Amino acid sequence: MTEHVTRNSLDTALRQRAARVIPGGMWGHQRAALLPEGYPQFFAKGEGAQVWDVDGNAYLDFMCSWGPIILGHRSPVVEQAVDAQRAIGDCLDGPTEHLVDLAELMVRTIPHADWAMFQKNGSDATTACVTIARAATGRRKVLVARGSYHGAVPWCTPSLAGVTAEDRAHVMHYEYNDVDSLLAAVKEAGDDLAAILVTAFRHDVGRDLEMPTRAFAEAVRGLCDDAGAALVLDDVRAGFRLNLGGSWESLGVRPDLAAWSKAIANGYPLAAVTGGDRFREAAQSVFVTGSFWCSAVSMAAAKATLGELHRLDAPRYLERIGSRFRAGLADQAKSHGVGIRQSGPPQMPLVLFDDDPDSGKGARFCREALRRGVYLHHRHNMFLSTAHTDADIDRALVATDAAFAAVAAADR
Amino acid sequence: MTEHVTRNSLDTALRQRAARVIPGGMWGHQRAALLPEGYPQFFAKGEGAQVWDVDGNAYLDFMCSWGPIILGHRSPVVEQAVDAQRAIGDCLDGPTEHLVDLAELMVRTIPHADWAMFQKNGSDATTACVTIARAATGRRKVLVARGSYHGAVPWCTPSLAGVTAEDRAHVMHYEYNDVDSLLAAVKEAGDDLAAILVTAFRHDVGRDLEMPTRAFAEAVRGLCDDAGAALVLDDVRAGFRLNLGGSWESLGVRPDLAAWSKAIANGYPLAAVTGGDRFREAAQSVFVTGSFWCSAVSMAAAKATLGELHRLDAPRYLERIGSRFRAGLADQAKSHGVGIRQSGPPQMPLVLFDDDPDSGKGARFCREALRRGVYLHHRHNMFLSTAHTDADIDRALVATDAAFAAVAAADR
Repeated sequence: MTEHVTRNSLDTALRQRAARVIPGGMWGHQRAALLPEGYPQFFAKGEGAQVWDVDGNAYLDFMCSWGPIILGHRSPVVEQAVDAQRAIGDCLDGPTEHLVDLAELMVRTIPHADWAMFQKNGSDATTACVTIARAATGRRKVLVARGSYHGAVPWCTPSLAGVTAEDRAHVMHYEYNDVDSLLAAVKEAGDDLAAILVTAFRHDVGRDLEMPTRAFAEAVRGLCDDAGAALVLDDVRAGFRLNLGGSWESLGVRPDLAAWSKAIANGYPLAAVTGGDRFREAAQSVFVTGSFWCSAVSMAAAKATLGELHRLDAPRYLERIGSRFRAGLADQAKSHGVGIRQSGPPQMPLVLFDDDPDSGKGARFCREALRRGVYLHHRHNMFLSTAHTDADIDRALVATDAAFAAVAAADR
Repeated sequence: MTEHVTRNSLDTALRQRAARVIPGGMWGHQRAALLPEGYPQFFAKGEGAQVWDVDGNAYLDFMCSWGPIILGHRSPVVEQAVDAQRAIGDCLDGPTEHLVDLAELMVRTIPHADWAMFQKNGSDATTACVTIARAATGRRKVLVARGSYHGAVPWCTPSLAGVTAEDRAHVMHYEYNDVDSLLAAVKEAGDDLAAILVTAFRHDVGRDLEMPTRAFAEAVRGLCDDAGAALVLDDVRAGFRLNLGGSWESLGVRPDLAAWSKAIANGYPLAAVTGGDRFREAAQSVFVTGSFWCSAVSMAAAKATLGELHRLDAPRYLERIGSRFRAGLADQAKSHGVGIRQSGPPQMPLVLFDDDPDSGKGARFCREALRRGVYLHHRHNMFLSTAHTDADIDRALVATDAAFAAVAAADR
């Protein structure tokens, strides 16, 4: 068995320095403290489907920077487009023609979209959708699935530290995929319903992923139509991996507004809101902006990324290799007598272990894979890129086979 | 007189395309609709102190992309640092060592700072400051100067479209530089005071800029100390132009938390919060994050930018050339018999005309300068960069002399 000699002396030294000048040593979703022991905090480089930590350990990357990397790290086509724009300028006194090109490309690609606006964070996009929906309807209530992640600003961040009750005064909850709970929430919102927010699928951390049922999606659409409210699709996490036109296209249900980010520019910082004509005037009426929102490089990167995603038929490619990975894992689990559940779309894999309330089995599995050069997550959906080849999947499966063996051995 | 032949056919064509796929054709602070007629909406490139619009017209740039550009467009030292990092990766599964280096550099540079965290937008940083202050104090009220710009999210955006009353339930107002109004607001907040927010100086659009008085700054500090509240310095707009350690250093008044962005990485998208040890635990307790917040390239750019700002003693350099510009403008206005007011720090010039309630004179002045290749703003403070040379200032003054003549002629 080929095992990596895992070095971590540089990572340890950086963590010690970080502890002095960064609260908690690190913050947010990329905190290694939220990962199994042994995961590196600091990275050095990425290329294709591979990342290297600061100590030089190489990993096959199944997190893709938590979503942004969809064509592999440093995709040559994207980097070339960036080189060309960087040579003449990025952040100027106004946008470049890339803004118009990209908005046109989004409108051509996304059936519900008559227009687009651009931001930097997923939270910028979801917040703008809510603001636009309120401006359009003159109403206040927004319905959010309990436990859904829509960003890290006071109205939606998962932690209540520093959040006031008023920040969420008009946020109401329903259960994802539960039409009755949706009906009850809509009834409670009454004539003050501005929007219903949905994620592409249920992708709450630490529980099985759940695709939306057709009945649920159609109920959301019907209730928004009846109330004149906005159906807001938060496609920040799943966007461009399931369907280039939006993650609910296969359901035949289209949103009024959608929030995009993560994979839109293969790692370059960008987010977008797309919407239909009914919300155009409201989108024009709100004041949202940022110092770097019109910068040219990220938009050039997005144009190149979307072009490549079309050319490669990326959702289908990711589905195929994701299915290969899933099938391999299922076989291995069975042969080792380990009970697992795989859920959600193959493009964004999640593996949870049976009888694993504290995620201890999942953590062990991931630690063992990590030692063998495969970077997985034990509780959060993972992400695939078009740089992941069949050979990469097969190489990953060599590591996961040993990892399942370790889980089985510890279970005995 | 050398006049540019101003072409605008490509700009016009792009505006027509944009009108179809972007609400209002453009949004936010870089909307040309907010500028005098004749200003271009779309830009092509930037180099040093100069920008070019899509039609190839060149302008001496006195907006510096509304602040981000402080070393001139495409500063070689910054671009070199970016090249080196881009060659190996940007957006990875975690931060690189640049994160730690940059946090240490901020702590060394900024006297109040014991720690730093990084974001993408100025609004991210101001919102995080408010959230941290609330988490630290367990209180809710934040005091904001009436008319001060702190970002473009619901709690602070200048437009009320789509904003609910609850978004601002705990935001209270005082008048900048008015200690009595501050005392009244503090009294009204009572034992629920979490923070007092201040901008580096009063830089509301369309009115004379106003430096903080020492009495005001000391009152803010004293009131926060008495109440155990956080003094939050919003240095997003002015940061690094007045004093590398923070814009209130010259007053001898230090904040508890500060928000930074714009000039921090010479145009690369980055924002930061710095704070003192008293707020470290609260900063650790809040959940704020974003998909691109730990990307390496912007941090490499920030390290290079701060290094150059130190090496060049940028605040003093900008003060010197800003004073040269200001003195030249004052002489010209006098010789043309035109009454103007120049206010604020020389590093961030503003020229307002006497008897100009609708900004018509200011707009004419800027239009005439623009025709002569100088890009000014008629209502918003402008920005200088270290790429602006004495010769650039003198060249700009040739244009402004003609522009003053046009204003004087129209006034007769």
